[in-house]
Amino acid sequence: MKSISRAWLKVRENTTPIQLIVCAYFGLIIITFALLSLPFFRNPAGVSSPLDTFFMAVSTVSVTGLTTVPINEVYNNYGVVLLEILFQVGGLGVTMLATVGMIFTRRRISLHQRQLIQVDMNQPRLSGTVRLVYSVFGLMMALQLFFGIIFAGYFYLKSDFLNFKEALFEGFYTSITAVTNAGFDITGSSLHPYRHDYLFLFFVIVLIIVGGIGFPVLAELREWFLFRFNTKKSGRFQFSLFVKLAVFFAALFFVLGAVLIFLAELQGKFASQPLSEKVMTALFYSASTRNAGLQLDALTDFRPVTLLLFSLLMFIGASPSSVGGGVRTTTIGILLLYLYSFIRGRKDVNIFGRRIGHDDIQKAVVVVNLSLLLCGLAVLLLAATEKQSLTALIFEVASAFGTTGLSLGITGSLSVVGKIVIIVLMFIGRVGMLYMLMLFISKKEQEANYMYPVEQVIIG
Amino acid sequence: MKSISRAWLKVRENTTPIQLIVCAYFGLIIITFALLSLPFFRNPAGVSSPLDTFFMAVSTVSVTGLTTVPINEVYNNYGVVLLEILFQVGGLGVTMLATVGMIFTRRRISLHQRQLIQVDMNQPRLSGTVRLVYSVFGLMMALQLFFGIIFAGYFYLKSDFLNFKEALFEGFYTSITAVTNAGFDITGSSLHPYRHDYLFLFFVIVLIIVGGIGFPVLAELREWFLFRFNTKKSGRFQFSLFVKLAVFFAALFFVLGAVLIFLAELQGKFASQPLSEKVMTALFYSASTRNAGLQLDALTDFRPVTLLLFSLLMFIGASPSSVGGGVRTTTIGILLLYLYSFIRGRKDVNIFGRRIGHDDIQKAVVVVNLSLLLCGLAVLLLAATEKQSLTALIFEVASAFGTTGLSLGITGSLSVVGKIVIIVLMFIGRVGMLYMLMLFISKKEQEANYMYPVEQVIIG
Ligand SMILES: [K+]
Ligand SMILES: [K+]
Repeated sequence: MKSISRAWLKVRENTTPIQLIVCAYFGLIIITFALLSLPFFRNPAGVSSPLDTFFMAVSTVSVTGLTTVPINEVYNNYGVVLLEILFQVGGLGVTMLATVGMIFTRRRISLHQRQLIQVDMNQPRLSGTVRLVYSVFGLMMALQLFFGIIFAGYFYLKSDFLNFKEALFEGFYTSITAVTNAGFDITGSSLHPYRHDYLFLFFVIVLIIVGGIGFPVLAELREWFLFRFNTKKSGRFQFSLFVKLAVFFAALFFVLGAVLIFLAELQGKFASQPLSEKVMTALFYSASTRNAGLQLDALTDFRPVTLLLFSLLMFIGASPSSVGGGVRTTTIGILLLYLYSFIRGRKDVNIFGRRIGHDDIQKAVVVVNLSLLLCGLAVLLLAATEKQSLTALIFEVASAFGTTGLSLGITGSLSVVGKIVIIVLMFIGRVGMLYMLMLFISKKEQEANYMYPVEQVIIG
Repeated sequence: MKSISRAWLKVRENTTPIQLIVCAYFGLIIITFALLSLPFFRNPAGVSSPLDTFFMAVSTVSVTGLTTVPINEVYNNYGVVLLEILFQVGGLGVTMLATVGMIFTRRRISLHQRQLIQVDMNQPRLSGTVRLVYSVFGLMMALQLFFGIIFAGYFYLKSDFLNFKEALFEGFYTSITAVTNAGFDITGSSLHPYRHDYLFLFFVIVLIIVGGIGFPVLAELREWFLFRFNTKKSGRFQFSLFVKLAVFFAALFFVLGAVLIFLAELQGKFASQPLSEKVMTALFYSASTRNAGLQLDALTDFRPVTLLLFSLLMFIGASPSSVGGGVRTTTIGILLLYLYSFIRGRKDVNIFGRRIGHDDIQKAVVVVNLSLLLCGLAVLLLAATEKQSLTALIFEVASAFGTTGLSLGITGSLSVVGKIVIIVLMFIGRVGMLYMLMLFISKKEQEANYMYPVEQVIIG
């Protein structure tokens, strides 16, 4: 017994936080795979091969939402509830839930565990990280609960055919799927029935954005609120550079995406719609494609150029340390700032009165280019193994890497190689390209570079 | 008169070599456009709108080979000869021809002009650049002449139906189109009749590679030859880092491209072919797609994955300071080295016992990423304006940017916006993304950074 615990200590000593986090995700996938294989959660008639069940496990833990089998046919109601629980685990992340669990059970959180949280929450300082995780967790739960009740009441009042229990189920499902950006379609029609209900869509958009903007942003906004309404404190509240960048690029890509979708479909799908519906639909898809994966209509209604735009938005993805995936907004944002600075003949990359560090630029360059390389290789591989249009393949790859979960309907008919490619993309997309790279850098090498400058920005 | 020459002096003083070179290309396009508009070079029945003629002018000067009108219908024999002359101008470059012209007319070449040549030939030192240009020009001309005669003799002996004059014409056309990487198809069947003639194909591949490997490589190889057979000189001959990189990456992309094409078509087009034909066809297309644009078969015979591979090879393009275009082999090579070094946890990028400078890495990153951005935007624009498959659009964009000139047959049916997009891509692809960027950096700013390290590598 003693030798085992000594061996475990040695493993822990030589393991970096990132290696532990990636291992935890992998372990979670194995557990999910085992659970989803149990007959208890499945319909007796439903058919799902081990590869399809593994695909489902990765899709659930990465909160992507791509499925090779119809959920309703393969899984029973227990299975659906299990999936909803797993969305929380996948969306909020293993470290957040482990921390909350330890707080509830009044276990002591060791320095090593705090370091792990610090890395996963992308915090520059070790102090206050546990409190941060706890408050973000509370906020996410409160949001899901509050909007679950709001949506349930709304569905009950609006639809004559729903009894209150059904309305409650659908309300909570919508709230959970929006906040955790899960995007799994269990009803078969996603949000199609509510496509003209702008106030409802507005709240869904807000929840999607809250989920994708990143936990550090939520935590700092909370601190700012507390600071503003605490008259005893003096001085000025200073948002971190990361939070400024995350909010700036989230807003930029959201608005730019909506404008481009609006223009692309002006003479297509939007031609016969009133202006309000055009604007609302464009805003909705700009938010949803970045990571949630909810939809109002059949995607095949859109023009090819719009589907390419969707692919681009899915590839960009959400903020780091959020429920989303992809190459991450701040990462692509820093690369764009770097290119802009070069064109303007500037040596440094400056924004919000701060200089972005050379290390961060280097990481952004590597993450974006390796992500492009990975997705490009995936498209090439799929083009060799699948008999589908290039648009559908690019869409599928971007959707998997961005953990968005939208599809042009080819997921079910993918070949074995195709399914494995998508599984790898979902995993890397959720864990993040930078984590994947740092997985192979030993603890010693990482600690040599551990002294960060104070205003380091989070990449990937 | 005096005030005009004074104004000209002032313009020259404030103009960087790159600005002059880009302006010269632009002037050349205007002259070509004017010439191609003359009835003297055109068939009375041929129809070509001013936009189509301008498209033709840019395609000729950039040595791309994409055409929106059938050459044989619009232009008469004089027109075809004019095009062949313009290939030389476009392929060898304005500075090379201007230098040779000045040497022939015994004009003095000023320091300013020598600086211009130095930049266009990507030479680290000012001394010896005129001699370099002259010797490279001689080599290119000798190659075209020598292989023109070889090919003419070969065609005459092989084909019963050709008289000697026709064989001579076709032989020289093949030689010129291979060395200058022009790739315009005047016969309508490209190299299809000779697809089983491996020795002939071998020589065509060699000529394509010679044209695309870069003038500085040719010049240094010539110096090395002179050094080897000059017993008076002592010591060791040292190739520059640029030449080593250019040769290394040209070889790497050539072999890798051929292997991938071979594998992609193993169960497609190559399925029923003997091994020798498989290998030869794969080698031929790996060389031709990178910039020449010659073809042996209908491109629609290839599988979608192979067409994507072709697009990738076209985007990569040839060496800097060569007859080719694209993002350039050394540029993408340095980016790949950089990514590899990062993954291996190395701070520096080392190859051939040298460290690649931070400036060069920065330029490579910017050039590749801006090129991807440009081509991505072009594909998006074309997807909005054209009714073609995404594969055909990506292929067309890569072909224009790589100045390759292969097409899946959509060039003629492009919309006005589509034609303009392709014109812009051909121009930037030939001039190079880095030149386009440096176009807007003033002479003062450039001179501030003019002190290069000795082993600077050429980007873009
Ligand atoms: K999702
Ligand atoms: K060409």
